[in-house]
Amino acid sequence: MIRIVIIGSGNVAQHLIKAFDKKNTVEVIQVFARNNNAIRSIFDTTKITHSYTTILEAELYIIAVSDNAIMEVASKIPFQNKLIVHTSGSVCMDDLGDTKRRGVFYPLQTFSKSKEVNFKEVPICIEAQNEADYQLLETVAKSISDTFFRINSKQRKALHVSAVFVSNFVNYLYQIGHTICNENNIPFEILQPLIQETAQKIKTLSPIEAQTGPAIRRDTQTVNAHLAFLTDENQKDIYKLLTKSIIDHGKKL
Amino acid sequence: MIRIVIIGSGNVAQHLIKAFDKKNTVEVIQVFARNNNAIRSIFDTTKITHSYTTILEAELYIIAVSDNAIMEVASKIPFQNKLIVHTSGSVCMDDLGDTKRRGVFYPLQTFSKSKEVNFKEVPICIEAQNEADYQLLETVAKSISDTFFRINSKQRKALHVSAVFVSNFVNYLYQIGHTICNENNIPFEILQPLIQETAQKIKTLSPIEAQTGPAIRRDTQTVNAHLAFLTDENQKDIYKLLTKSIIDHGKKL
Repeated sequence: MIRIVIIGSGNVAQHLIKAFDKKNTVEVIQVFARNNNAIRSIFDTTKITHSYTTILEAELYIIAVSDNAIMEVASKIPFQNKLIVHTSGSVCMDDLGDTKRRGVFYPLQTFSKSKEVNFKEVPICIEAQNEADYQLLETVAKSISDTFFRINSKQRKALHVSAVFVSNFVNYLYQIGHTICNENNIPFEILQPLIQETAQKIKTLSPIEAQTGPAIRRDTQTVNAHLAFLTDENQKDIYKLLTKSIIDHGKKL
Repeated sequence: MIRIVIIGSGNVAQHLIKAFDKKNTVEVIQVFARNNNAIRSIFDTTKITHSYTTILEAELYIIAVSDNAIMEVASKIPFQNKLIVHTSGSVCMDDLGDTKRRGVFYPLQTFSKSKEVNFKEVPICIEAQNEADYQLLETVAKSISDTFFRINSKQRKALHVSAVFVSNFVNYLYQIGHTICNENNIPFEILQPLIQETAQKIKTLSPIEAQTGPAIRRDTQTVNAHLAFLTDENQKDIYKLLTKSIIDHGKKL
């Protein structure tokens, strides 16, 4: 049984605590949380601490706090020669400090408080300074997910940028669609099958094969009609930039 | 039994022909196709014509051709007082000409030749000049889909623009993620669960509630790190514009 201490009480910490619950190979023996309100409903309150002096010895410390607090938290863990990992997509492994065994345990997913996540389908990106620690992290990853990848810090940075494009920015485009529908008394649900199919399609087609629409067809008549329809300058700017990008970088059909 | 003639042999025509096959309330009695190679494998070749003089009488003519050919095709149908509809998101109903009964039968979905579509889940946007024709189109829509909406030409234009944002542009953001992964020797599949979850999330959350990432957190450190990582000027421009838009229009968390 690999004993784990989780440090943090935010979205990622909460989803990890739930995912590790009742697993055979791992056990969360303690959670460090300055504010335990967020996790008292999902974790034994007698095992929650908010003092670094009472942190237990464990095989693995998972720091799931905001990026700019990771370095400070890592420096306060009162043990030498213990494996410490963070869960961030954008922080280098070496930012954990140089006196300890370091690693990264980055679950690549978008976590919202009000939406459950099936961790089995969340890819875990693992990195460690030495092979033994990597193996331990692989065992921990396997306990909660079906997929894990060995990803170094440079690759993880690339992944994190990609994730912003395919998730955060994509969601913002959904928001624009939502706004336009609202303004024209159209139920947003009418776009749902299209949104789901667009995501499903790239399971079997590459994005360049899956591209449809007026831009890739060089249909300037429709493009101009759309620009004439839009009244919001920000929406127009986005429409123009993405249309030009598709024309310049897409595969002409 | 409502008898239908379909005019066209492209993506939408092919998907409609397959969807109408073996239905109790409708029957495609003829397909007009200048090039029948595309449809001879899915439709009885003896019922394919490429001459307007041999077009059969039917209750409904569905014009599924490219937008700029709709008006010309409509003018060549050699019957008066027959219901003629097109399947376009961006063409006005009145572009069908003014001597005939007009309507629109717009299936709101992204159709690729190499990807099957479950028509049951495709919303059909219906418009007609008179109520009797609307009812007929509703019967036809019901025969192939579980959802249909009464959508006028102005709303349909809004929907079509929205569809470009939530599907064509979204797919282009997938392409950028794909490119960045390739350049860093990362398998694109690692992003699939994130892409699917991002789409799934807005079934239960509004896009504004579902927004995550550095922009909505006002995390300028991560934003700047991402911009420093990107080397492609076009990707940088898109990153900057969408980040600024999320900061300006998102709900601060």
